[in-house]
Amino acid sequence: MRILIVGASGTIGRAVVGKLEKHHEVICAGRSSGDVFVDITSVDSIQAMYEKVGKVDAVVSATGKAHFGPLSELTPELNGIGIESKLKGQIHLVLAGMDYVNDGGSFTLTTGIMMDDPILQGASAAMANGGVKAFVKAAAIELPRGIRINSVSPNVIQESLDKYGAFFPGFEAVPVQRVALAYQKSIEGAQTGQNYEVY
Amino acid sequence: MRILIVGASGTIGRAVVGKLEKHHEVICAGRSSGDVFVDITSVDSIQAMYEKVGKVDAVVSATGKAHFGPLSELTPELNGIGIESKLKGQIHLVLAGMDYVNDGGSFTLTTGIMMDDPILQGASAAMANGGVKAFVKAAAIELPRGIRINSVSPNVIQESLDKYGAFFPGFEAVPVQRVALAYQKSIEGAQTGQNYEVY
Repeated sequence: MRILIVGASGTIGRAVVGKLEKHHEVICAGRSSGDVFVDITSVDSIQAMYEKVGKVDAVVSATGKAHFGPLSELTPELNGIGIESKLKGQIHLVLAGMDYVNDGGSFTLTTGIMMDDPILQGASAAMANGGVKAFVKAAAIELPRGIRINSVSPNVIQESLDKYGAFFPGFEAVPVQRVALAYQKSIEGAQTGQNYEVY
Repeated sequence: MRILIVGASGTIGRAVVGKLEKHHEVICAGRSSGDVFVDITSVDSIQAMYEKVGKVDAVVSATGKAHFGPLSELTPELNGIGIESKLKGQIHLVLAGMDYVNDGGSFTLTTGIMMDDPILQGASAAMANGGVKAFVKAAAIELPRGIRINSVSPNVIQESLDKYGAFFPGFEAVPVQRVALAYQKSIEGAQTGQNYEVY
Protein backbone atom coordinates (compact mmCIF):
# COMPACT_ATOMS: atom_id res chain seq x y z
CA MET A 1 0.00 0.00 0.00
CA ARG A 2 0.92 3.66 -0.41
CA ILE A 3 0.52 5.26 3.02
CA LEU A 4 0.66 8.94 4.00
CA ILE A 5 1.62 9.51 7.64
CA VAL A 6 0.98 13.02 8.95
CA GLY A 7 3.00 13.71 12.08
CA ALA A 8 5.59 11.14 11.05
CA SER A 9 8.38 12.61 13.16
CA GLY A 10 6.53 12.42 16.50
CA THR A 11 6.88 9.63 19.04
CA ILE A 12 3.84 7.78 17.69
CA GLY A 13 4.51 8.71 14.07
CA ARG A 14 8.03 7.29 14.11
CA ALA A 15 6.78 4.01 15.59
CA VAL A 16 4.03 3.76 12.96
CA VAL A 17 6.54 4.45 10.19
CA GLY A 18 8.84 1.77 11.59
CA LYS A 19 6.00 -0.72 11.74
CA LEU A 20 4.76 -0.08 8.19
CA GLU A 21 7.78 0.76 6.05
CA LYS A 22 8.95 -2.82 5.64
CA HIS A 23 5.84 -3.80 3.71
CA HIS A 24 4.46 -0.53 2.36
CA GLU A 25 5.48 2.65 0.60
CA VAL A 26 5.40 5.27 3.36
CA ILE A 27 5.22 9.02 2.71
CA CYS A 28 6.10 11.12 5.74
CA ALA A 29 4.43 14.49 6.32
CA GLY A 30 5.18 16.99 9.05
CA ARG A 31 5.26 20.66 9.90
CA SER A 32 8.98 21.03 9.34
CA SER A 33 10.29 17.62 8.33
CA GLY A 34 9.42 14.70 6.09
CA ASP A 35 8.78 14.11 2.41
CA VAL A 36 6.11 16.80 2.35
CA PHE A 37 5.37 19.68 4.71
CA VAL A 38 1.92 20.38 6.11
CA ASP A 39 0.31 22.62 8.69
CA ILE A 40 -2.93 20.86 9.61
CA THR A 41 -4.43 24.08 10.98
CA SER A 42 -4.49 25.40 7.39
CA VAL A 43 -7.00 23.99 4.91
CA ASP A 44 -4.86 25.34 2.06
CA SER A 45 -1.77 23.60 3.40
CA ILE A 46 -3.65 20.28 3.68
CA GLN A 47 -4.95 20.68 0.13
CA ALA A 48 -1.46 21.43 -1.18
CA MET A 49 -0.10 18.34 0.59
CA TYR A 50 -2.65 16.06 -1.06
CA GLU A 51 -2.02 17.63 -4.48
CA LYS A 52 1.69 16.98 -4.09
CA VAL A 53 1.29 13.42 -2.75
CA GLY A 54 -1.51 12.23 -5.04
CA LYS A 55 -3.47 9.04 -4.57
CA VAL A 56 -2.82 6.90 -1.47
CA ASP A 57 -4.30 3.80 0.10
CA ALA A 58 -4.18 5.05 3.66
CA VAL A 59 -3.87 8.32 5.55
CA VAL A 60 -2.64 8.26 9.14
CA SER A 61 -2.90 11.30 11.37
CA ALA A 62 -0.53 10.97 14.31
CA THR A 63 -0.63 14.66 15.06
CA GLY A 64 -2.72 17.37 16.68
CA LYS A 65 -1.98 19.80 19.48
CA ALA A 66 -4.18 20.73 22.44
CA HIS A 67 -3.62 22.92 25.49
CA PHE A 68 -3.01 21.27 28.87
CA GLY A 69 -3.79 23.53 31.80
CA PRO A 70 -6.18 24.16 34.71
CA LEU A 71 -9.84 24.51 33.77
CA SER A 72 -10.03 27.73 35.78
CA GLU A 73 -7.41 29.25 33.48
CA LEU A 74 -8.81 27.85 30.23
CA THR A 75 -9.64 30.77 27.96
CA PRO A 76 -11.43 30.55 24.61
CA GLU A 77 -8.05 31.29 23.00
CA LEU A 78 -6.24 28.44 24.78
CA ASN A 79 -9.15 26.08 24.11
CA GLY A 80 -8.91 27.14 20.49
CA ILE A 81 -5.52 25.42 20.14
CA GLY A 82 -7.14 21.98 20.43
CA ILE A 83 -10.10 23.04 18.30
CA GLU A 84 -7.91 24.26 15.44
CA SER A 85 -5.29 21.51 15.57
CA LYS A 86 -6.35 18.20 17.11
CA LEU A 87 -10.05 18.53 16.23
CA LYS A 88 -10.47 20.57 13.04
CA GLY A 89 -7.01 19.72 11.74
CA GLN A 90 -7.66 15.98 11.80
CA ILE A 91 -11.19 16.33 10.42
CA HIS A 92 -9.98 18.53 7.58
CA LEU A 93 -7.43 15.82 6.71
CA VAL A 94 -10.45 13.58 6.08
CA LEU A 95 -12.66 16.11 4.29
CA ALA A 96 -9.87 17.22 1.95
CA GLY A 97 -8.45 13.71 1.60
CA MET A 98 -11.52 11.73 0.58
CA ASP A 99 -10.84 12.24 -3.13
CA TYR A 100 -7.21 11.17 -2.74
CA VAL A 101 -7.83 7.85 -1.00
CA ASN A 102 -8.21 4.83 -3.26
CA ASP A 103 -11.22 2.51 -3.14
CA GLY A 104 -11.16 0.44 0.04
CA GLY A 105 -8.52 2.68 1.59
CA SER A 106 -8.56 4.11 5.09
CA PHE A 107 -8.13 7.06 7.40
CA THR A 108 -6.74 6.54 10.90
CA LEU A 109 -6.93 9.49 13.30
CA THR A 110 -5.65 9.91 16.86
CA THR A 111 -7.65 10.59 20.04
CA GLY A 112 -6.46 9.91 23.61
CA ILE A 113 -7.31 8.32 26.92
CA MET A 114 -8.24 11.54 28.78
CA MET A 115 -11.66 11.62 27.11
CA ASP A 116 -12.51 8.33 28.84
CA ASP A 117 -10.41 8.58 31.98
CA PRO A 118 -10.17 12.30 32.79
CA ILE A 119 -7.05 13.97 34.13
CA LEU A 120 -6.54 17.34 35.77
CA GLN A 121 -5.69 20.00 33.17
CA GLY A 122 -7.01 17.79 30.38
CA ALA A 123 -10.50 19.18 29.64
CA SER A 124 -9.56 20.87 26.38
CA ALA A 125 -7.67 17.85 25.06
CA ALA A 126 -10.55 15.59 26.12
CA MET A 127 -12.95 17.81 24.18
CA ALA A 128 -10.87 17.55 21.01
CA ASN A 129 -10.50 13.80 21.39
CA GLY A 130 -14.22 13.28 22.01
CA GLY A 131 -15.07 15.28 18.92
CA VAL A 132 -12.71 13.24 16.76
CA LYS A 133 -14.01 9.94 18.15
CA ALA A 134 -17.64 10.84 17.44
CA PHE A 135 -16.79 12.17 13.97
CA VAL A 136 -15.02 8.92 13.12
CA LYS A 137 -17.96 6.80 14.25
CA ALA A 138 -20.42 8.87 12.22
CA ALA A 139 -18.26 9.42 9.13
CA ALA A 140 -17.68 5.67 8.85
CA ILE A 141 -21.25 5.08 7.68
CA GLU A 142 -20.98 7.69 4.92
CA LEU A 143 -17.53 7.35 3.38
CA PRO A 144 -17.75 6.37 -0.30
CA ARG A 145 -16.05 3.55 -2.26
CA GLY A 146 -15.44 1.30 0.74
CA ILE A 147 -13.15 3.82 2.40
CA ARG A 148 -12.83 3.09 6.11
CA ILE A 149 -12.06 5.32 9.09
CA ASN A 150 -10.93 4.55 12.63
CA SER A 151 -9.19 6.32 15.47
CA VAL A 152 -6.54 5.19 17.93
CA SER A 153 -6.79 6.32 21.54
CA PRO A 154 -3.44 5.91 23.29
CA ASN A 155 -2.82 5.89 27.01
CA VAL A 156 0.20 7.95 28.08
CA ILE A 157 3.18 6.48 26.26
CA GLN A 158 6.25 5.13 28.06
CA GLU A 159 8.55 6.91 25.64
CA SER A 160 6.81 10.25 26.42
CA LEU A 161 6.78 10.01 30.21
CA ASP A 162 9.42 12.73 30.53
CA LYS A 163 7.10 15.19 28.84
CA TYR A 164 3.63 14.01 29.86
CA GLY A 165 4.07 11.68 32.84
CA ALA A 166 3.20 14.34 35.42
CA PHE A 167 -0.25 14.76 33.87
CA PHE A 168 -1.04 11.05 34.24
CA PRO A 169 -0.41 9.96 37.84
CA GLY A 170 -1.31 6.32 38.34
CA PHE A 171 -1.84 5.67 34.65
CA GLU A 172 -0.18 2.52 33.34
CA ALA A 173 1.96 3.88 30.51
CA VAL A 174 2.00 1.78 27.36
CA PRO A 175 4.96 1.15 25.04
CA VAL A 176 4.65 3.02 21.76
CA GLN A 177 4.97 -0.29 19.93
CA ARG A 178 1.56 -1.34 21.33
CA VAL A 179 0.08 1.90 20.05
CA ALA A 180 1.63 1.39 16.61
CA LEU A 181 -0.10 -2.00 16.37
CA ALA A 182 -3.50 -0.30 16.54
CA TYR A 183 -2.66 1.85 13.51
CA GLN A 184 -1.55 -1.27 11.66
CA LYS A 185 -4.83 -2.98 12.59
CA SER A 186 -6.77 -0.02 11.25
CA ILE A 187 -4.81 0.11 7.97
CA GLU A 188 -4.37 -3.58 7.17
CA GLY A 189 -7.61 -4.82 8.76
CA ALA A 190 -11.16 -4.31 7.55
CA GLN A 191 -12.91 -2.62 10.46
CA THR A 192 -14.43 0.84 10.32
CA GLY A 193 -15.93 3.32 12.76
CA GLN A 194 -13.80 2.01 15.61
CA ASN A 195 -11.83 3.83 18.30
CA TYR A 196 -9.02 1.48 19.31
CA GLU A 197 -8.30 2.01 22.98
CA VAL A 198 -4.67 1.20 23.74
CA TYR A 199 -5.07 1.35 27.51
CA MET B 1 -32.83 28.02 42.95
CA ARG B 2 -32.09 30.77 40.45
CA ILE B 3 -31.70 29.08 37.05
CA LEU B 4 -30.51 30.55 33.74
CA ILE B 5 -31.80 28.67 30.70
CA VAL B 6 -30.05 29.47 27.43
CA GLY B 7 -32.15 28.47 24.45
CA ALA B 8 -35.33 28.79 26.49
CA SER B 9 -37.62 29.27 23.50
CA GLY B 10 -36.67 26.03 21.72
CA THR B 11 -38.57 22.76 21.94
CA ILE B 12 -36.37 21.43 24.72
CA GLY B 13 -35.92 24.81 26.39
CA ARG B 14 -39.66 25.40 26.72
CA ALA B 15 -40.14 21.97 28.29
CA VAL B 16 -37.31 22.57 30.74
CA VAL B 17 -38.74 25.97 31.67
CA GLY B 18 -42.16 24.38 32.20
CA LYS B 19 -40.67 21.69 34.40
CA LEU B 20 -38.65 24.08 36.57
CA GLU B 21 -40.59 27.33 36.85
CA LYS B 22 -43.03 26.05 39.48
CA HIS B 23 -40.29 25.60 42.05
CA HIS B 24 -37.48 27.85 40.89
CA GLU B 25 -36.75 31.33 39.63
CA VAL B 26 -36.14 30.84 35.92
CA ILE B 27 -34.31 33.37 33.73
CA CYS B 28 -34.80 32.79 30.01
CA ALA B 29 -32.04 33.61 27.52
CA GLY B 30 -32.21 33.39 23.76
CA ARG B 31 -30.91 34.89 20.55
CA SER B 32 -33.99 37.03 19.98
CA SER B 33 -36.37 36.34 22.84
CA GLY B 34 -36.38 35.93 26.60
CA ASP B 35 -35.36 37.96 29.63
CA VAL B 36 -31.87 38.43 28.25
CA PHE B 37 -30.48 38.10 24.73
CA VAL B 38 -27.36 36.09 23.94
CA ASP B 39 -25.49 34.88 20.88
CA ILE B 40 -23.47 31.89 22.12
CA THR B 41 -21.08 32.14 19.18
CA SER B 42 -19.81 35.42 20.67
CA VAL B 43 -17.69 35.35 23.82
CA ASP B 44 -18.52 39.03 24.39
CA SER B 45 -22.25 38.35 24.17
CA ILE B 46 -21.97 35.50 26.68
CA GLN B 47 -19.98 37.70 29.04
CA ALA B 48 -22.56 40.50 28.73
CA MET B 49 -25.36 38.03 29.49
CA TYR B 50 -23.70 36.86 32.71
CA GLU B 51 -22.98 40.45 33.78
CA LYS B 52 -26.64 41.30 33.30
CA VAL B 53 -27.99 38.16 35.00
CA GLY B 54 -25.56 37.98 37.92
CA LYS B 55 -25.20 35.00 40.23
CA VAL B 56 -27.22 31.84 39.55
CA ASP B 57 -27.45 28.35 40.97
CA ALA B 58 -27.71 26.58 37.64
CA VAL B 59 -27.00 27.23 33.98
CA VAL B 60 -28.79 25.14 31.37
CA SER B 61 -27.73 25.19 27.73
CA ALA B 62 -30.53 23.87 25.54
CA THR B 63 -29.07 25.41 22.42
CA GLY B 64 -26.42 24.97 19.78
CA LYS B 65 -26.61 24.63 16.01
CA ALA B 66 -24.81 22.17 13.75
CA HIS B 67 -24.97 21.47 10.04
CA PHE B 68 -26.81 18.38 8.81
CA GLY B 69 -25.75 17.26 5.35
CA PRO B 70 -23.89 14.56 3.40
CA LEU B 71 -20.29 13.93 4.44
CA SER B 72 -19.18 14.26 0.83
CA GLU B 73 -20.48 17.84 0.82
CA LEU B 74 -19.19 18.77 4.27
CA THR B 75 -16.84 21.73 3.87
CA PRO B 76 -14.70 23.26 6.64
CA GLU B 77 -17.13 26.21 6.59
CA LEU B 78 -20.25 24.05 7.07
CA ASN B 79 -18.48 21.99 9.74
CA GLY B 80 -17.59 25.28 11.40
CA ILE B 81 -21.25 25.92 12.23
CA GLY B 82 -21.28 23.09 14.78
CA ILE B 83 -17.80 24.01 16.00
CA GLU B 84 -18.71 27.63 16.67
CA SER B 85 -22.20 27.04 18.07
CA LYS B 86 -22.90 23.62 19.58
CA LEU B 87 -19.30 22.93 20.63
CA LYS B 88 -17.49 26.19 21.41
CA GLY B 89 -20.70 28.05 22.26
CA GLN B 90 -21.64 25.61 24.99
CA ILE B 91 -18.10 25.34 26.33
CA HIS B 92 -17.75 29.12 26.47
CA LEU B 93 -20.97 29.22 28.52
CA VAL B 94 -19.07 27.16 31.09
CA LEU B 95 -15.72 28.98 30.90
CA ALA B 96 -17.34 32.42 31.19
CA GLY B 97 -19.97 31.25 33.66
CA MET B 98 -17.85 29.59 36.34
CA ASP B 99 -17.55 32.80 38.34
CA TYR B 100 -21.32 33.40 38.18
CA VAL B 101 -22.44 30.01 39.48
CA ASN B 102 -22.92 29.74 43.23
CA ASP B 103 -21.20 27.09 45.36
CA GLY B 104 -22.70 23.68 44.66
CA GLY B 105 -24.43 24.93 41.52
CA SER B 106 -24.45 23.23 38.16
CA PHE B 107 -24.06 23.45 34.41
CA THR B 108 -26.16 21.23 32.15
CA LEU B 109 -25.24 21.13 28.46
CA THR B 110 -26.86 19.36 25.51
CA THR B 111 -25.38 16.67 23.26
CA GLY B 112 -27.40 14.23 21.11
CA ILE B 113 -27.88 10.60 20.15
CA MET B 114 -26.09 10.74 16.77
CA MET B 115 -22.69 10.59 18.48
CA ASP B 116 -23.59 7.12 19.80
CA ASP B 117 -25.94 5.87 17.11
CA PRO B 118 -24.79 7.53 13.86
CA ILE B 119 -27.15 8.81 11.19
CA LEU B 120 -26.53 9.77 7.58
CA GLN B 121 -25.73 13.49 7.29
CA GLY B 122 -24.93 13.68 11.00
CA ALA B 123 -21.12 13.56 11.16
CA SER B 124 -20.66 17.23 11.99
CA ALA B 125 -23.34 17.22 14.67
CA ALA B 126 -21.89 14.00 16.10
CA MET B 127 -18.47 15.67 16.29
CA ALA B 128 -19.84 18.63 18.23
CA ASN B 129 -21.78 16.37 20.58
CA GLY B 130 -18.81 14.11 21.23
CA GLY B 131 -16.64 17.10 22.04
CA VAL B 132 -19.18 18.44 24.53
CA LYS B 133 -19.62 15.03 26.18
CA ALA B 134 -15.88 14.58 26.67
CA PHE B 135 -15.43 18.14 27.92
CA VAL B 136 -18.20 17.62 30.50
CA LYS B 137 -16.65 14.41 31.78
CA ALA B 138 -13.23 16.03 32.13
CA ALA B 139 -14.36 19.43 33.44
CA ALA B 140 -16.35 17.71 36.19
CA ILE B 141 -13.19 16.75 38.06
CA GLU B 142 -11.86 20.33 38.02
CA LEU B 143 -14.79 22.63 38.66
CA PRO B 144 -14.30 24.61 41.90
CA ARG B 145 -16.62 25.10 44.91
CA GLY B 146 -18.65 21.93 44.38
CA ILE B 147 -19.97 23.11 41.04
CA ARG B 148 -21.23 20.18 38.97
CA ILE B 149 -21.56 19.65 35.24
CA ASN B 150 -23.55 17.14 33.18
CA SER B 151 -24.91 16.85 29.66
CA VAL B 152 -28.19 15.53 28.32
CA SER B 153 -28.17 13.51 25.11
CA PRO B 154 -31.66 13.40 23.60
CA ASN B 155 -32.92 10.99 20.99
CA VAL B 156 -34.96 12.65 18.24
CA ILE B 157 -37.90 14.31 19.95
CA GLN B 158 -41.51 13.50 19.12
CA GLU B 159 -42.39 17.19 19.07
CA SER B 160 -39.62 17.85 16.49
CA LEU B 161 -40.41 15.01 14.10
CA ASP B 162 -41.72 17.40 11.44
CA LYS B 163 -38.32 19.06 11.26
CA TYR B 164 -35.90 16.23 12.06
CA GLY B 165 -37.81 12.97 11.63
CA ALA B 166 -36.42 12.28 8.14
CA PHE B 167 -32.87 12.22 9.53
CA PHE B 168 -33.74 9.52 12.09
CA PRO B 169 -35.41 6.57 10.30
CA GLY B 170 -36.20 3.77 12.73
CA PHE B 171 -35.30 5.83 15.78
CA GLU B 172 -37.82 5.61 18.60
CA ALA B 173 -38.66 9.29 19.14
CA VAL B 174 -38.96 10.37 22.78
CA PRO B 175 -41.43 12.86 24.25
CA VAL B 176 -39.77 16.13 25.19
CA GLN B 177 -41.08 15.69 28.74
CA ARG B 178 -38.74 12.70 29.17
CA VAL B 179 -35.84 14.86 28.00
CA ALA B 180 -36.80 17.65 30.41
CA LEU B 181 -36.60 15.18 33.30
CA ALA B 182 -32.91 14.63 32.61
CA TYR B 183 -32.21 18.36 32.97
CA GLN B 184 -34.14 18.35 36.24
CA LYS B 185 -32.07 15.38 37.44
CA SER B 186 -28.86 17.22 36.60
CA ILE B 187 -29.95 20.42 38.36
CA GLU B 188 -31.71 19.07 41.45
CA GLY B 189 -29.62 15.93 41.85
CA ALA B 190 -26.02 15.61 42.96
CA GLN B 191 -24.30 13.79 40.11
CA THR B 192 -21.49 15.24 38.03
CA GLY B 193 -19.61 14.32 34.88
CA GLN B 194 -22.58 12.40 33.50
CA ASN B 195 -24.09 12.34 30.01
CA TYR B 196 -27.75 11.42 30.48
CA GLU B 197 -28.85 9.39 27.47
CA VAL B 198 -32.57 9.89 26.88
CA TYR B 199 -32.84 7.14 24.29
